[in-house]
Order: sequence, then structure tokens, then C-alpha cells
Amino acid sequence: MNDKSKKPQKLKARLPRGFVDRSAADIHATNEMTAKIREVYERYGFDPIETPLFEYTDALGKFLPDSDRPNEGVFSLQDDDEQWMSLRYDLTAPLARHVAENFNEIQLPLRTYRAGYVFRNEKPGPGRFRQFMQFDADTVGAPGVQADAEMCMMMADTMEALGIKRGDYVIRVNNRKVLDGVMEAIGLGGADKAGQRLNVLRALDKYDKFGVEGVKLLLGPGRKDESGDFTKGVGLDSSQSSMLVGFLQSKLYVIAEGGKVTSRLESQGPDAFSSPEYQPGSTYHEGVDELGQIASLATSAGYGPDRIKIDPSVVRGLEYYTGPVFEAELTFDVTNEKGEKVVFGSVGGGGRYDGLVSRFMGQPVPATGFSIGVSRLMTALKNLGKLGQDEVIAPVLVTVMDGDVESMGRYQRFTQALRNEGVRAEMYQGNWKKFGNQLKYADRRGCPIAIIQGGDERGQGVVQIKDLIEGKRLSGEIEDNASWREARVAQETVAEADLIAKVKEILAAQAEDRRRAKNV
Amino acid sequence: MNDKSKKPQKLKARLPRGFVDRSAADIHATNEMTAKIREVYERYGFDPIETPLFEYTDALGKFLPDSDRPNEGVFSLQDDDEQWMSLRYDLTAPLARHVAENFNEIQLPLRTYRAGYVFRNEKPGPGRFRQFMQFDADTVGAPGVQADAEMCMMMADTMEALGIKRGDYVIRVNNRKVLDGVMEAIGLGGADKAGQRLNVLRALDKYDKFGVEGVKLLLGPGRKDESGDFTKGVGLDSSQSSMLVGFLQSKLYVIAEGGKVTSRLESQGPDAFSSPEYQPGSTYHEGVDELGQIASLATSAGYGPDRIKIDPSVVRGLEYYTGPVFEAELTFDVTNEKGEKVVFGSVGGGGRYDGLVSRFMGQPVPATGFSIGVSRLMTALKNLGKLGQDEVIAPVLVTVMDGDVESMGRYQRFTQALRNEGVRAEMYQGNWKKFGNQLKYADRRGCPIAIIQGGDERGQGVVQIKDLIEGKRLSGEIEDNASWREARVAQETVAEADLIAKVKEILAAQAEDRRRAKNV
Repeated sequence: MNDKSKKPQKLKARLPRGFVDRSAADIHATNEMTAKIREVYERYGFDPIETPLFEYTDALGKFLPDSDRPNEGVFSLQDDDEQWMSLRYDLTAPLARHVAENFNEIQLPLRTYRAGYVFRNEKPGPGRFRQFMQFDADTVGAPGVQADAEMCMMMADTMEALGIKRGDYVIRVNNRKVLDGVMEAIGLGGADKAGQRLNVLRALDKYDKFGVEGVKLLLGPGRKDESGDFTKGVGLDSSQSSMLVGFLQSKLYVIAEGGKVTSRLESQGPDAFSSPEYQPGSTYHEGVDELGQIASLATSAGYGPDRIKIDPSVVRGLEYYTGPVFEAELTFDVTNEKGEKVVFGSVGGGGRYDGLVSRFMGQPVPATGFSIGVSRLMTALKNLGKLGQDEVIAPVLVTVMDGDVESMGRYQRFTQALRNEGVRAEMYQGNWKKFGNQLKYADRRGCPIAIIQGGDERGQGVVQIKDLIEGKRLSGEIEDNASWREARVAQETVAEADLIAKVKEILAAQAEDRRRAKNV
Repeated sequence: MNDKSKKPQKLKARLPRGFVDRSAADIHATNEMTAKIREVYERYGFDPIETPLFEYTDALGKFLPDSDRPNEGVFSLQDDDEQWMSLRYDLTAPLARHVAENFNEIQLPLRTYRAGYVFRNEKPGPGRFRQFMQFDADTVGAPGVQADAEMCMMMADTMEALGIKRGDYVIRVNNRKVLDGVMEAIGLGGADKAGQRLNVLRALDKYDKFGVEGVKLLLGPGRKDESGDFTKGVGLDSSQSSMLVGFLQSKLYVIAEGGKVTSRLESQGPDAFSSPEYQPGSTYHEGVDELGQIASLATSAGYGPDRIKIDPSVVRGLEYYTGPVFEAELTFDVTNEKGEKVVFGSVGGGGRYDGLVSRFMGQPVPATGFSIGVSRLMTALKNLGKLGQDEVIAPVLVTVMDGDVESMGRYQRFTQALRNEGVRAEMYQGNWKKFGNQLKYADRRGCPIAIIQGGDERGQGVVQIKDLIEGKRLSGEIEDNASWREARVAQETVAEADLIAKVKEILAAQAEDRRRAKNV
């Protein structure tokens, strides 16, 4: 590696762009959140399966949207047998490989979930990282839309399990067949136009971002952004674009009654199907029928359109979707970096990908799945104050007054005795000679209690116990709140034998204070 | 990527060598294990910090032992700005980078832990993977051996928290300074001999694997293995080798009394220090003194030599250790792949690395840490029957008899009602038309209960509930165990409104049966 690495004069501690370290608070919040998600998925009968971070590049396939870099958005390297390997860019392609590789041992239909890091070799930006976590659920070997309906219900339950109120989220559902049918109607059907259809889908997927006019430009001649960068358009004529955009702005009502599905498309902008020339065919109607079945199953199980909603504007820019597509959207307002109120938006999505496993097989293997963007959902939950409920209490600090082997042994014994009783505790490990530093450390770390034993106390077999929270309060910080001030003394001297009991008593009193403060 | 990837005729589903998928059982066991470890570390006052999987190659440094591949055992690739990045090969080097990068914001001493995947670009072999999980704890900014002693105690507590009995594990401790002192004594002191010393350490580290004669060959002329591969030796003469090997085989007794540490080295093979020419100097004695302090602190806190034991044969092949080194060893016997009884051996280790953070800084930053090999420890726990206690019950299966929208809605409603009550449940998602397949699926998946509703039942508003466990038992599998056979009926018809209560009742009865079976 010597010849490869550019060694700077002095070794600089820095991370490659687009990668970040994670703090204790962030890790605790993620664990709390993923545990809740996992609980819902397990209840739905899903079991975990995990794949490694590397796959052969050809096994991953090329399904990334918006690849703006030469090596198509993935991190790749050559193994010593010359084969190309890549870091996974999502959790779906590796699962497809896993199922195909173990097809004979797997009991289908298979419900499975996994959380893990994925990697995108993209230009990093604000909130856009090159390593991030996804949490996926997939059902493989399930041909019917009841599997898609289940995904939607599971996502609704997941949102509520995370504390997001009904009304603050919606699972929006569309069907790739419906969109394909609309594209067929304007002459974009057939295998030879697959590439063009994908470009249309990616343009439509920008509806939330660029609005009607932006999407029309992307569908037509192309669009120049504020920085002057030009994105090539699909090259449709204006009547084609109008129909697509008209459809996006429509409301699709599906009604399932007496075992039959009927639908009604209500235009809000230009009427999508006003031209007799452009009328959707069988693919469209098949798609609508599937949406009707999903809505019907969801409604039967108590999930009305306030939670699971048919919405023709859901696109999903991934090539591999073949049927229903879904998106979990948070509908409450947040303030963006420009100070504007905006709807929080999508925290995950997915859809049916019937062709992804069968790429490896001689037979069709239907599948559907859903992926949650973990850090984006976490941002939302932080906004709602729904994370960090499990408070982490800082450790009790056993200070060090004397450094001889015997005294140190005693401090260590106090510390272990506290730990053995389940009390979070630590002995000061810095340079003990400056005692002020130890108290400063306790303060910055937020330690609730300090234990002190100097030579005199040691001689008498006692320790001083300092209640650092009460001490702060007594020194004035919150003394106006006199109603819940009890006669707690900030410092006490107790016999060594009573140390643990006294520490537990003070910790309990502090917990009670916190509880009261919350309820004030 | 097209030009790079060797596309086979038919896309083959396979993983690159040295990488594996993880099953549900494996994932549950890992989660159970890491949760227990985390609980101990938190109690000791440690907080989590995580770093990303990539680092700049120069920031990682070159500290891998046994690099037998051209790019020195790491996976590396060039970023688009030509800088080399690598996947981390351990969790210590990235932590050192993190501390140096955030030095002004971090409150020292810092106790921190993390679990994560690391990568080695090595030849994979049985039980040797290119991606595996480590669980690390580190204390940074703690100069004294009390931090090392704490590491050892924490590891002992971790072993017991995982259910490993006292006597079945031992934390073995040595000091790099002791070994350095011995090497100095035979003329290998000084900065110019650092490379040679590292080679000696790596040879000594093979003691468990190759025995006395093997190590002597590695220290001297070199060693040929069974396959005929030759490993170059360090080139020491036989009196130098004898001293080193003699030391390895010795017992080092350290006694701390009245604030003073004394030591006694008891030779079991050739007397290490018999030659007056080869007598260890101050580095050796400093190392012994530190070991004495560690033993003393541990003993004071109740951790005797049955748990934390001074042992001169602990080497650790990593270059960056500067003081105490430790190893967690499981001492019970297991049968290896050749059918021989062997001691299970090391499940983790660590030591003091005072130079690793300061590579980035203008000042010394002392640190010590410990790393657990997660999958190796898991193998041990499985051997002991200490994992998989938290049993995962397969879901209740709601079967599908009719595929019309209305009937499907009903099945879906039953399923959701069970889930809402916390019962793991699923509706059959495969091709429902062959009912036999549904029962076969339930059997293979281990479903405890099947719910069945055909047209007749639907007309009467009832469901059939099949107790699949009891059904199996009644059909003869365990009917000899008559003492706990109760009058449970394997199939019952109940009103739809009673479905949930009945399912819960059967699940409770099954749980009670399992509990009894365990205690028989």
C-alpha cells in the first residue's frame, strides 16, 4: 500500500467525504427505533436474514436511480481472482441473490426482514451520505396482491408503533401497471421502449420536487436547474406530457363491492384521458383492479384511506418494480433549512419486484418488499420528540485521592461493589493528582453522585457521598421551584458498609425528582 | 461497470469467497449475546461510539498481523479524488482516528464501546471469514494500569453475564514491557531492532499452535509446515531462542503487599534467566511492577487468579501494544474437527496502545482496549448450550380457502386482529388453491396453530382452530409421555368472536407443555 497511499507530512485525522461517526445518543435512538420496528415485523411472521456487505457486481445488477458517477454509484473493487465485487447499494438485490442461491432449502412463501448499511458512491451533500442504514421487509414467493396489502398494513402499524399518530402518516399506494398502461396509451409500450419508460418514470418521480412545470420540462425538451446544469429531457410532445402530468394530478377512486372492483379517475388538472386517441388498455385496467383488491383487503382489516390511500402520483424511480408500489409519507409540517414550512414527506417505500429473483432462475419468483430509510425516519421521530425516552443515566464517579496500591484497591472495590449491584459506576481513570479535574470531569459527564475517600475517612472506615444533582440545585440553579424541594443534603458521610444502600437511595430520589419535573 | 464485470452466460447466484449469509437463529443468538455484553459495558460507565466502515488508508495505518496478500490484508479502493480508502480491519484504528479528529470536544478519560463488522482481505478458510464482527471496549486518556485492570475485570464479568461459569474462563494478562525487557536482555533492544522484535513477538504468539519446537524454528532458521510451505525465521542463535522459550514456559508470581510489588519467576522448562550474560533490565522490571499493580487491584476488588491471572505466555501479535496485554480464554474442552479434545481457547484480547492516537497528535494520548471476536464467542456459547434461550415461536397460520375479495378480506381481518393482540400471525401468501400445500407449509414452518374457514363456516360465522402441536402429539409422536397428556382437543370450531381468546388459550397451553417437558 506504501506506493499507493499519498502520505501527508503529518498524519491527519479525518474521514472520507460522505461518511460520519455516530454518537451515543444517535446509537441509542437507532437501537430503540429498530427494536420497535423489529417487534412489529416479528408479529407479522417475518424472520431475519442478513447478507454480507459485498456481492459480486453482476449479481447486484444495475438498478440504481440517478447514477451520476462513472462507476454508476457503487463502490467496486477487483478480487484477487480478477472478479469484480461491489458493496451493496440496497438490501433487495442481495436478498434476491440469497433466495436464488438457497432456493431448494427455502420454504416459500418467505417473509423476511433485515437492517443494515448500504453504500452509494455518490457526491455527498447535506443529509446525503455514502453509507446509511436501511430496514427492509420482503415477502418472496407470494404472487397475489394480498402480500402487497400486508406490506402496507405492516408499515402503517410500524409508524404507529414508533409513536406517529394516526393522521400524521399515510401509506400511499400506486401500481406500476397503471403507469405502464398510461405510457402504453401514449405510444410508449413494447420492450424496445423500456429505457424510455424508465426515463419517464424518473421524470414523474420528480413531481414533489419540481412541480408540474418542472416535470413537463423533464418529459419534453429538458430542464436547466438554478446552478445552470442541464438535464436532458425524454423528448415527448406536449400532448403526451399533458396526459402524464394530468394523470399524476388525478385522484383515483377504487371501490370493491360484491366481489367486484370498479374505479373512477377524477382529474384535478387537465383531464388525463380526454383525448379519444389516448385511451389506456388492459395493463392499465389490470393495475387498477389490483389497487382495488389492495384497498378492499386493507379496509376489511380496518385500515381505511386515512392510513392506506390509493394515489396515482406515487412513482418510485426504480426500474425493477413490476406491480404495486408504495410510499410511507409523514404528513405533518416541519421547517426546512430555508425556514419554510414543508410536509416532512417520505420515510420509506417499496413495491413488487417479480423479476429480480428470477434473473438467476429458470422460473418466475414473485416478490414484494418495503424499505425504511433509518436515519430519515429517526430525524422525523426526533422532530416529534418520540425518541430518547429511555434515558441513560451517567455513572456514579468514585474519585481517587491517593495513588498507592492499597488505596487504589479500595476505590476499585467500591466501584465493583456498585457495579455488582447493577449501579452504573466508574473509578476516575485520568491523572488523579488534580482533584479539581475529577469534579470538573464529573460535572461535564453529568455524573449523579461522587464518592470521596481521603486518608482521614479511610482511617475511620467511612466515605463521603456527594449528590451532584442536589448540589447543583442547592447552589441556586432551580431553587425557585420550592414546591418540590425536599430536605435532601448534598453531601453525607456514611460507613463503607452503607455505601451501596445510600447511593441507591440518592439515585432513587433523583429519579423521583426527574419524574416530578416532567409532570410539572 | 459493463466493461469491467465478467458476465457469465447465465447469471449465477453466488457469494464471493469468505462471505456468508446469516440465518435467523444466528441473528437472534448474536442479538441476545451482544445485548448482554452491552449491559455489562454500560454498567461499567462505557458509552457507544460508532465509526463508518471506510477510513482513509493512511489513517488506518498498517497494523495487521500475518499479512499474506499483496495489499496487506485490507480491502482498498481509490476515491474519485484519487485518495485511497480502505474498509476497516479492526475497530481500534478507527477509534484512534475519531478521538484525534474530535479531540477538543471529547471529555477525557473516555470509556467507549462499539460492535461492528471488520474486513480482512485474506485467503478464507474453515471458520475464517473476510467479514466478521468484533465487539470492542476502549478507555482513552487513562495513563494508569488501573484502566487495564478494569478492562480485565469487565471481561471477567462479561464472561459470567454470558453464562460462562467461574472456572470455565480466565483472563490472562502479560505486559509488552516484560517481553520487551526479555528481548533487550538478549540484545534486541533499540529503535533499529523494532522490526526484529515484532517478528519475535509473532513467532512467540504461535506457541499455542506450534509448541516449543515450532517456535524455536520460527525464532531461528525458519519452519516448514506440513504442506511444505517455508516460513522464514528470525535468525536468533539457540541461546537467545532458549531464553525466550524458557520465559514463555515460566510462571510469573507477583505479590503486592504493603504497597510494594515483588515478583518471582518460576521456570518450568529451561531456566530463562540462568545465563548471567542475559539479565533483563529496567523495562522488564517496570513491566513486572505494572503486572503487580493489576493483580493487586483485581484481588482487592474480589477478582483472584482463578479469574484474572498473570501469564508470561500471552503475547498478542499486534505491533501497536505498549504495555499490558490480555486475553480471554475459555478453559473447557471441546472436540475439534479431527475428533481430538482441545481447550476451547481465546475468544478475545487486547492491550494498552499508548501510541495509536498520538500518531495524529502533537501530544501523547494513552489508551487501552479489549476486543471480542463475536462469532467465535458465539460458537463457544452454543457449545455450552447458553444461547437460544429466548425461543422464537412460529406464527399462527390463517389459511385461505376462497380467493374472492370478500373472503380474503375476512382472512386478512382475522390475521390483523391476532397481530393487534400481540399474537404472531400470518395469512397464507402462496398459491392458496392447493390446500395441502398450506398445511405442508404450516408443518415445515413449525406453525403452532392453523385457522380454517370454508364457505360453510363462513355462513355460520365460525372458524376451525387446529392445534398443530397437539395434533402431532395425538398422531403418536410423543404419546408415550402419557403423564402430561391433558384432554386437549386438536381441532375445535368456535365463533369468530371467540377466535382470539381461543388462540391465546391454546398458545398458553402449548407454552405450559414446553415448560413441563423441559423440567421432566
